[in-house]
Amino acid sequence: PDDGATAAACARDAVLTKPPGALGRLEEVVRWLAAWQGRAVPVAERLKIVVFAGNHGVAARGVSAFPAEVTVQMVENFRRGGAAINQLAQCFGADLGVVSLQLDRPTADFCTGPAMSEEELLAALAAGWEAVTPGLDLFVAGEMGIANTTSAAALAAALFGAQGGSAGWCGRGTGLDDAGLARKEAAVALALHCHDGHLADPFEALRRLGGREVAAMTGAILRARIERVPVLLDGFIACAAAGVLERARPGALDHCMAAHLSAEGAHGRLLAALNKEPLLSLNLRLGEGSGAGVALGLIRAAVACHAGMATFAEAGVSGG
Amino acid sequence: PDDGATAAACARDAVLTKPPGALGRLEEVVRWLAAWQGRAVPVAERLKIVVFAGNHGVAARGVSAFPAEVTVQMVENFRRGGAAINQLAQCFGADLGVVSLQLDRPTADFCTGPAMSEEELLAALAAGWEAVTPGLDLFVAGEMGIANTTSAAALAAALFGAQGGSAGWCGRGTGLDDAGLARKEAAVALALHCHDGHLADPFEALRRLGGREVAAMTGAILRARIERVPVLLDGFIACAAAGVLERARPGALDHCMAAHLSAEGAHGRLLAALNKEPLLSLNLRLGEGSGAGVALGLIRAAVACHAGMATFAEAGVSGG
Repeated sequence: PDDGATAAACARDAVLTKPPGALGRLEEVVRWLAAWQGRAVPVAERLKIVVFAGNHGVAARGVSAFPAEVTVQMVENFRRGGAAINQLAQCFGADLGVVSLQLDRPTADFCTGPAMSEEELLAALAAGWEAVTPGLDLFVAGEMGIANTTSAAALAAALFGAQGGSAGWCGRGTGLDDAGLARKEAAVALALHCHDGHLADPFEALRRLGGREVAAMTGAILRARIERVPVLLDGFIACAAAGVLERARPGALDHCMAAHLSAEGAHGRLLAALNKEPLLSLNLRLGEGSGAGVALGLIRAAVACHAGMATFAEAGVSGG
Repeated sequence: PDDGATAAACARDAVLTKPPGALGRLEEVVRWLAAWQGRAVPVAERLKIVVFAGNHGVAARGVSAFPAEVTVQMVENFRRGGAAINQLAQCFGADLGVVSLQLDRPTADFCTGPAMSEEELLAALAAGWEAVTPGLDLFVAGEMGIANTTSAAALAAALFGAQGGSAGWCGRGTGLDDAGLARKEAAVALALHCHDGHLADPFEALRRLGGREVAAMTGAILRARIERVPVLLDGFIACAAAGVLERARPGALDHCMAAHLSAEGAHGRLLAALNKEPLLSLNLRLGEGSGAGVALGLIRAAVACHAGMATFAEAGVSGG
């Protein structure tokens, strides 16, 4: 982060025509963008959302409310502009990309073995890495993958511990009924048992329990850090993917802000583990990057106020 | 509200390419807009923000962190486009109006008598009434008035009771120090004592304890109800102004949604009294309508998703 840019942003903020601190968390957004963009007056012009899509062997265990073919159908919907994330990207002027990761080759069922080989993991990480281009003002990693909250729950349990039982990391995803939730909890418990003793390394946990789109998000968020591109974290799956980096190196997510607290049961617990305070809490549970897409409105608002407001001196307004 | 439009909006929502309920409170926003706009597919094209400005005799008691001349200075800042609300209006495509209410004639100090005569109250209510034009898609009432959180605190105490002491309705406004807060608490206590026995009628409470801009907000929110224009409520002062209507007739604010929970101490208590769940909680405490201005981004996002998303049938996506 650029401390000089942060200090300059704070100095400007202090003389804008408002009481100090009166824009609350929008001021925090400005300081964060300034630090990572290296600009005293941060901008929100090159906003990029990439939706990564992958399929999961564990879907065969009936852990999702939707059938596995929905992944490829939704990718087509993204490409035609019909999904929620398309509307949000257009609404806030973000560029939207879709990266489809071998949808015809689901990962292996991680209840009985590793989800990915080392080569597969590396290919997925690289796909994410390549999706982040230098010079972006902000990046959002979204995802689509039937059964991927099951993968994220297992990964979160591996990364941050299963105190109170691994079921505490399992939520209803796109709308599981009680029987489906029980199958999901059983799958996660089975996976943790199967890989017991091999989960201490966070990237190995990602290989064994993650999915292609989850690993791609990890790779993208890492690349963003290298390029000093601020990242708006979406929901439970994005936070699990990011958690790999935090566990590998504490502080690795300093370039990230949490867009929202979703309705997925364990998202709050995961955000707490990452020490991130979400900007929004609107009971969203859609994925695709949609929570971060909605939060782009706050980013635009924060940047607009900081860049456009008059100072006390310019406006002839008496200070407090 | 138009129940037919609400039902049609719900029917469309149910077939959009997302799990049912997955857009959380954005779906609630769509239902609310549909009901009051009378449209199955609500729009956000004619968005109007009006900032009402007034001065307060009670300011002489040292109850604000800023001097009283800041009101007129900020009105000039609004007119030149330099305030936060100007940037937010521009950012989300809202039309911004400013209504200055006799800034050279502050209300009387309500610690020793009524803030306004009946004529003055009616003029202020009418100014608000006239600011809401038929056919708007959404209206926001903002305010500027040094010392107006003191007026709003006294009014809220009168409307909703001072259990636990009137100090519980007092917060730090634009940034009061401890001594200033003590003066504010004393002023509110004095006012409630002075007008004791005359506060049962909510409009009489508004006349005695309100201010011109507070009463104008009340008038505007009432006109919006008559015209079936949805209103996004801003912070503590807007909610106190709206509270007059709720106390006069329970349900009078069914056309209103709360934009945010501000940092002003008693705003949460006031929202609870109005039975409104805020969309945002970003520690804003600026006034001007800025919290509602930021929430316009959520309105745009909700409307964009509902109007633009493909249905399951259109996209060829399998349902759950």
